Amino acid sequence: MLEPATSLAQRVVTAMLAKDRATPMLGMAVVSAAEGACCIEMTVREDMLNGYETCHGGVLFTLADSAFAFACNSRNLCMVAAGAQIDFLRPARVGDILRATAAEISSGKRLGLYDVTVTNQKQQTVALFRGRSCRVDGVVVNDAGTESATV
Amino acid sequence: MLEPATSLAQRVVTAMLAKDRATPMLGMAVVSAAEGACCIEMTVREDMLNGYETCHGGVLFTLADSAFAFACNSRNLCMVAAGAQIDFLRPARVGDILRATAAEISSGKRLGLYDVTVTNQKQQTVALFRGRSCRVDGVVVNDAGTESATV
Amino acid sequence: MLEPATSLAQRVVTAMLAKDRATPMLGMAVVSAAEGACCIEMTVREDMLNGYETCHGGVLFTLADSAFAFACNSRNLCMVAAGAQIDFLRPARVGDILRATAAEISSGKRLGLYDVTVTNQKQQTVALFRGRSCRVDGVVVNDAGTESATV
Amino acid sequence: MLEPATSLAQRVVTAMLAKDRATPMLGMAVVSAAEGACCIEMTVREDMLNGYETCHGGVLFTLADSAFAFACNSRNLCMVAAGAQIDFLRPARVGDILRATAAEISSGKRLGLYDVTVTNQKQQTVALFRGRSCRVDGVVVNDAGTESATV
Repeated sequence: MLEPATSLAQRVVTAMLAKDRATPMLGMAVVSAAEGACCIEMTVREDMLNGYETCHGGVLFTLADSAFAFACNSRNLCMVAAGAQIDFLRPARVGDILRATAAEISSGKRLGLYDVTVTNQKQQTVALFRGRSCRVDGVVVNDAGTESATV
Repeated sequence: MLEPATSLAQRVVTAMLAKDRATPMLGMAVVSAAEGACCIEMTVREDMLNGYETCHGGVLFTLADSAFAFACNSRNLCMVAAGAQIDFLRPARVGDILRATAAEISSGKRLGLYDVTVTNQKQQTVALFRGRSCRVDGVVVNDAGTESATV
Repeated sequence: MLEPATSLAQRVVTAMLAKDRATPMLGMAVVSAAEGACCIEMTVREDMLNGYETCHGGVLFTLADSAFAFACNSRNLCMVAAGAQIDFLRPARVGDILRATAAEISSGKRLGLYDVTVTNQKQQTVALFRGRSCRVDGVVVNDAGTESATV
Repeated sequence: MLEPATSLAQRVVTAMLAKDRATPMLGMAVVSAAEGACCIEMTVREDMLNGYETCHGGVLFTLADSAFAFACNSRNLCMVAAGAQIDFLRPARVGDILRATAAEISSGKRLGLYDVTVTNQKQQTVALFRGRSCRVDGVVVNDAGTESATV
């Protein structure tokens, strides 16, 4: 019996999170995962602030990058990030609840393109992220269990 | 008496770091700061790994972004990041000592452009970052002390 | 009596096209223009092909860039392109009818962000473009007529 | 006897230019070509101007993109552009002699990264371009002659 794609995407996220240390270290939690898509939430903490006392751009990028990673691996074919662009539209502040929503723009044999929108609790856009992924050999989960690939 | 530019850049970094919580949280230390330039170091920790057990791209971005922030504010005229592009060239692993070196490409009345190279302890390039900054009102440090601006 | 925004956008495009030589040289025609938006069409000619006999990426970029320019100047406040990113999703070939549709993502006092989608006659996405604009002094059209600004 | 890499790069450019129509249409001439590198020149014509009477950003991009294409195919392994970023630093005007110099940053099995600098006759930087290429099957020239690949 074929496994539904949504369920596979969730198994992939579970397997990746079993090894991923940075995503939980920054308090990021996966809200949903589906084929080519992922949504993650994070509350801005005091230790995420930069010298202007707004959320560090690198933390915003990390939130978007995690959503991108889960989305581009969701078909269980390993992909790694080749690069990404982020545009910062408004600052995020302590206590803000940020949500990164990743959507697949294209997914080919070699390359994938994903857009991630970071919004705050007022549904305002905080940042726009466009990530480029590259296919590498291997799968994230195999039938025997949940072995995460190593690149 | 005019203050040398290098010293001003160092005062700016000191003032920004007094409020910046994310940069030290990730173990990043400023190696040097000068007019339009900055160098930061960080050792990859276990809690910085992603699902592939390499350093999370967001952490690499954060390292580069901090170097960019210190470099673009180094003339004591407030600049915020408008956006940035990063390209990942090779993975970084636990224990790797990474160095982000920011250099000014252009700095105008409104916009600045900065290149940051992230290298490892073998002098291999790990990532290339190009950041775009935008001038906002205010200064980082004033004569009375080290008051960091708020945007 | 206040002039409707749509009409102003159209006057801006007319004024810009009066001086713009590159857009007509490449056979690009404005389909529609509104506040923060613009749509342009172009048929791929033989003299637009690259060494792989597909439409040169620079011509695709130019199509998107013209739509971006008209959209970001549509409020009659002069903006120039600071930069842009383009991702090529599929090749375009001789005779393809390409349409670039620009939409405003954000428009602030200093900076603007615009997304442009280039599609072919089969409604397939050929390229995605994200442009960053920067406000400069002046207006494109004034009450006396249609004088295009010079930067 | 092995052929020197420089000569192969020149043969690749010759083969690509035999089919490339856009590069000569815009008056672009190859100054030099070597392994991973290329230099192209172009004089800004009146029909390259935009609505601000400066060289259209798309034409600047096209110049850089052609240099990128010749550089990333220089080893005779077919590569196509996946995308590129350009930052515009100063306007170019009618009569300006522009030079695009492409240099390889990295070249792997699947992906390549190239930086192109566009300068004017005063050696001022007009634009910075960073292109990402993706390997596809085939070669540009084969032993039998100069057959350009089709993708």
